Amino acid sequence: MAFTRPLEVNGKPVGGGGEPLVCAPLVGRDEGAVLGELDAIVAKRPDLLEWRVDFFSGIADSGRVVELAREIRKRAGGIPIIFTRRSIREGGETIGISEDEVLAMYQAVARSGAVDFIDCELSSEPRHFAAAVELARETGTKLIASFHNFQKTPSAEEIVATFVSMEKAGADVAKVAVMPQGLEDVLTVLQATLQGQKAISLPIISMSMGTYGSLSRLFGWVFGSSVSFAVGQKASAPGQVPIEDLRKVLEVLQRSLKP
Amino acid sequence: MAFTRPLEVNGKPVGGGGEPLVCAPLVGRDEGAVLGELDAIVAKRPDLLEWRVDFFSGIADSGRVVELAREIRKRAGGIPIIFTRRSIREGGETIGISEDEVLAMYQAVARSGAVDFIDCELSSEPRHFAAAVELARETGTKLIASFHNFQKTPSAEEIVATFVSMEKAGADVAKVAVMPQGLEDVLTVLQATLQGQKAISLPIISMSMGTYGSLSRLFGWVFGSSVSFAVGQKASAPGQVPIEDLRKVLEVLQRSLKP
Repeated sequence: MAFTRPLEVNGKPVGGGGEPLVCAPLVGRDEGAVLGELDAIVAKRPDLLEWRVDFFSGIADSGRVVELAREIRKRAGGIPIIFTRRSIREGGETIGISEDEVLAMYQAVARSGAVDFIDCELSSEPRHFAAAVELARETGTKLIASFHNFQKTPSAEEIVATFVSMEKAGADVAKVAVMPQGLEDVLTVLQATLQGQKAISLPIISMSMGTYGSLSRLFGWVFGSSVSFAVGQKASAPGQVPIEDLRKVLEVLQRSLKP
Repeated sequence: MAFTRPLEVNGKPVGGGGEPLVCAPLVGRDEGAVLGELDAIVAKRPDLLEWRVDFFSGIADSGRVVELAREIRKRAGGIPIIFTRRSIREGGETIGISEDEVLAMYQAVARSGAVDFIDCELSSEPRHFAAAVELARETGTKLIASFHNFQKTPSAEEIVATFVSMEKAGADVAKVAVMPQGLEDVLTVLQATLQGQKAISLPIISMSMGTYGSLSRLFGWVFGSSVSFAVGQKASAPGQVPIEDLRKVLEVLQRSLKP
């Protein structure tokens, strides 16, 4: 049963087309912490890894970043890697470098061949977003356009419009993560995910965050979200559930949803 | 955390107020089959049992029905019991007795003290429904008003209106089970369940049936459905998941939804 559009790396669906994909974040502060996390996480065999470089204290040194990206690649056992600098504006960590320097770092990392996906916020300056699109084309990486709202959940129409903007802007994957103020908002995200699949042809990643939102991390794939971010060692956003818990629920769902 | 309104028996919440309640159906064709099922199911400790008397070949003999109800009570180890004749119109089995005879059977069983809940379809003839309300008052059993649609899912507004009609008609619990034609319909039932809780003061039981609907059986309680029907030995409606699977998911959800 194929509920979601598969993410591909080198033309092959990530996770062999199984669904949903489980992605574990790496949020270590230095090389030792990131690699320690990585070893623990790789043992749990997620389908994807996301290195959240905004947590990395060495972010100002592109050389260190590339070197660590290469080391992650080497130890990841073939698990595809998403490279992400999340901005403070969208829930990330404070970093000491400018947006132009962030772009240069993205270029160095993508050109190193150490990552498969790069994440760029749709709210980035248009010239930075366009440069990320160009970088993805040039290096064969896939561009995840992302949108986050840690305060509230926009309407389903607004979320779908965001997906459409991401496709128009040249993204390969469209990701929206928003905070529910009540259970209705969790349904809104699921609804928008269903509608989004009719509106765009990209794989969608969607989630409702926080406590209530954990529901969407467990069940959202049925409604069309291609990836669920789950905790390998440490959460990178509120509401992420441990990989083991996600897998328990997936196992039951895959049995229950067999026609 | 209290998502749902508790069902009560003798003023005490069923299942000690834990949620959601897991209800296993008994669908045996004769005494031996029902009691065999019962023993297997009681070992799994559901919160509720529902005896679907329309499956019972002895339904035309009220004496046999009461005797078996008493035997179920004796062996149920204190688990509260719902007594249900589901009509063909709403997905039940063909039975050889008239609606007046069904009412007489309900009266005999409720007066025997062997059951805690009786289920009566809102679509019953008004005089039959009114008699069920009176019977519940007289015997101290609780009346579950039910509505089923095995073809489609009405709009959220229509489902909420059904809940309201059930409360007005004198029910103690309002139950709606409908078939989704797509994933949107599963969201509609969850939405209606959320809205229904604001519209009426009764506990609500809601579910989407079939393959997609199994989602609502697993997580509908978060949106306010007090009971999930799960398979002890044999399903009584499409989409029911095994008790063991439901419990696995509940365990994860209860952990994930802790604030």
